[in-house]
Amino acid sequence: MFRFTLVKKDKKTKARLGFFETLHGKVETPIFMPVGTAGSVKTVTPDELKDVGAQIILGNTYHLHLRPGEDVVNHFGGLHKFIRWDRPILTDSGGFQVFSLAELKNITEEGVTFRSHLDGHKIFLTPEKSIEIQSKLGSDIMMVLDECVPYPCEKEYVKKSIKLTTRWAKRCKEAKKNQWQALFGIVQGGVYEDLRKQSAEEIVEIGFDGYAIGGLSVGEENRLMYDITDFTTDYLPEDRPRYLMGVGTPEDILECVSRGVDMFDCVMPTRNARNGLLFTSYGKLHIKREQWKLSDKPIDENCNCYTCKNFSRGYLRHLFKAGEILALRLNTIHNLHFYISLVKDIRNAIRKECFEEFKKEKLEMFKIGGDNV
Amino acid sequence: MFRFTLVKKDKKTKARLGFFETLHGKVETPIFMPVGTAGSVKTVTPDELKDVGAQIILGNTYHLHLRPGEDVVNHFGGLHKFIRWDRPILTDSGGFQVFSLAELKNITEEGVTFRSHLDGHKIFLTPEKSIEIQSKLGSDIMMVLDECVPYPCEKEYVKKSIKLTTRWAKRCKEAKKNQWQALFGIVQGGVYEDLRKQSAEEIVEIGFDGYAIGGLSVGEENRLMYDITDFTTDYLPEDRPRYLMGVGTPEDILECVSRGVDMFDCVMPTRNARNGLLFTSYGKLHIKREQWKLSDKPIDENCNCYTCKNFSRGYLRHLFKAGEILALRLNTIHNLHFYISLVKDIRNAIRKECFEEFKKEKLEMFKIGGDNV
Ligand SMILES: [Zn+2]
Ligand SMILES: [Zn+2]
Repeated sequence: MFRFTLVKKDKKTKARLGFFETLHGKVETPIFMPVGTAGSVKTVTPDELKDVGAQIILGNTYHLHLRPGEDVVNHFGGLHKFIRWDRPILTDSGGFQVFSLAELKNITEEGVTFRSHLDGHKIFLTPEKSIEIQSKLGSDIMMVLDECVPYPCEKEYVKKSIKLTTRWAKRCKEAKKNQWQALFGIVQGGVYEDLRKQSAEEIVEIGFDGYAIGGLSVGEENRLMYDITDFTTDYLPEDRPRYLMGVGTPEDILECVSRGVDMFDCVMPTRNARNGLLFTSYGKLHIKREQWKLSDKPIDENCNCYTCKNFSRGYLRHLFKAGEILALRLNTIHNLHFYISLVKDIRNAIRKECFEEFKKEKLEMFKIGGDNV
Repeated sequence: MFRFTLVKKDKKTKARLGFFETLHGKVETPIFMPVGTAGSVKTVTPDELKDVGAQIILGNTYHLHLRPGEDVVNHFGGLHKFIRWDRPILTDSGGFQVFSLAELKNITEEGVTFRSHLDGHKIFLTPEKSIEIQSKLGSDIMMVLDECVPYPCEKEYVKKSIKLTTRWAKRCKEAKKNQWQALFGIVQGGVYEDLRKQSAEEIVEIGFDGYAIGGLSVGEENRLMYDITDFTTDYLPEDRPRYLMGVGTPEDILECVSRGVDMFDCVMPTRNARNGLLFTSYGKLHIKREQWKLSDKPIDENCNCYTCKNFSRGYLRHLFKAGEILALRLNTIHNLHFYISLVKDIRNAIRKECFEEFKKEKLEMFKIGGDNV
């Protein structure tokens, strides 16, 4: 069971308001999905994820396959039961990590052979295998295995690559067994509009529950990423959710919602939190700075997360400088709350037909810089 | 304001039931105090500390002096406000860390000169300075500065050392300014009964709100530690709490309560948690073991902590093996809950006049070994 409902289309932009339903509940779009790499959104509990308003999280097939292995997860009744998260989960195909983390990759028609970045053992990942792993993990949304080309990449290579991605997408669809699990196709094509169009048409032709735009946010300029996203969403059906993989900054999310994207995931809020970089309504704030030593202000006076309700910048700075794990937790809670509140506010703005003004105002605010407030 | 009330004395052992009152509330004894080294009990929030039942925590004067500095803490209104913990706090004198962590120590009548283990800068700590720092931190219970001799240590050296400790204790009492902060004296004397007696008599003669036994659990055998504790408590007044510093294992706590001790602190539950060593009602359990890979049991079926109520050994093993911070948190919550439940059960047993049987039963249970259940 998976059903997407488009509730409203913005009149001035391509922003959309909607929701989708899964076996584990409903998700409102546009949505941001925190990344739960290896069965844990780093540093936080499932209850804290609910407290910050997370509706859906992402699990990494590559990491879970390596450790603890999909059979172990399946033994516990699937990923939801294993990690004790009863809301929707999306799993990626493992492809992105294989192409970015693993060593000694060898791509053939059949699949991709690579070595684990943990212990170097050889693994052969095929479209069928990726679906089998994701079936055992029991995610609500599975992703097809695609080839992720680096940036920059020769057009001739990308041209061949999108055809392989299309053939793999077909095999994924055929390999899918569980009715209740949704499967999303992925549009590739690098930064080439004609190839993006071709890939989108081929993937849509096969037919999926939702469509992702892959291979962006890999080093290209923001403007180019926005343009390709804008261009690609025109070739995606209205009645299916669109997911821009691995994106991005708060600015990216505002820009790409206005270009017709419904779903986002990114390690940015969690990874930056662990590096002491915090998102605020006035832009970024570096918690380790000397200037916060005696500050009794919260990270963001406009934020009502657990961290901001309870702790001062001065204390958070101290914890971070002292290398305390509590710093990483409190920072993560704030950043996730920021991202999830942002998409919530975006949904409200679309609902109230003021998304364009809202976006403009937010982007202006971000420019002030959190360190200046 | 500090007042200790002795509620009940066990008939078969020297165990005592009591409570003390401070500006930040009441603490029932026997009690275990989690260690909040640098303004954070590692990995957990103040709310989680309350959830596991912590009544009082310990702060390390040495660490807080180095980072962020007592003036910073004082700027925020003291340690309670800074770290957002509104229950009692005990601070040590800094002595123990100076003698164990710092480099290039030089002890004179006046005080001790040492170099910070963080950046090597020179610090001169005197009894007056220690009290000044603890006053600025605003703890409910301050400790006198004492000389902590290593183990083993020549009797002649210990003999001279306890006299210095007595003179420093006097200076600490004279330096104390805040009426509401309690000050505890510390009995030293190594493993020499006559010196322990002499130190206890001298320290009690000065007069303090409570008395600590210092210099134990530093490498000597358990039996010897128990004997010295047993011997020393006989020289301490009944109407003041007795605090055995830096002790210990669950077994140590049972043994030393029965020898007349009321207060304990130790990094063991928190540090062991971060190393994957968990305390259970059947003894120790190593969460990283292969044997837990598919186990859906909680760490301890007799435990109702957040971790045991929600997560399986299999998942906790996975998190720990994957190096996830969530593992450290969940392990810490369990171990702290274990220690704090243990002293709570001890208090109930004394109240019900069955402490000796309770102790015997517990020690038998611990011998089974958590890995065997
Ligand atoms: Zn916040
Ligand atoms: Zn537990």
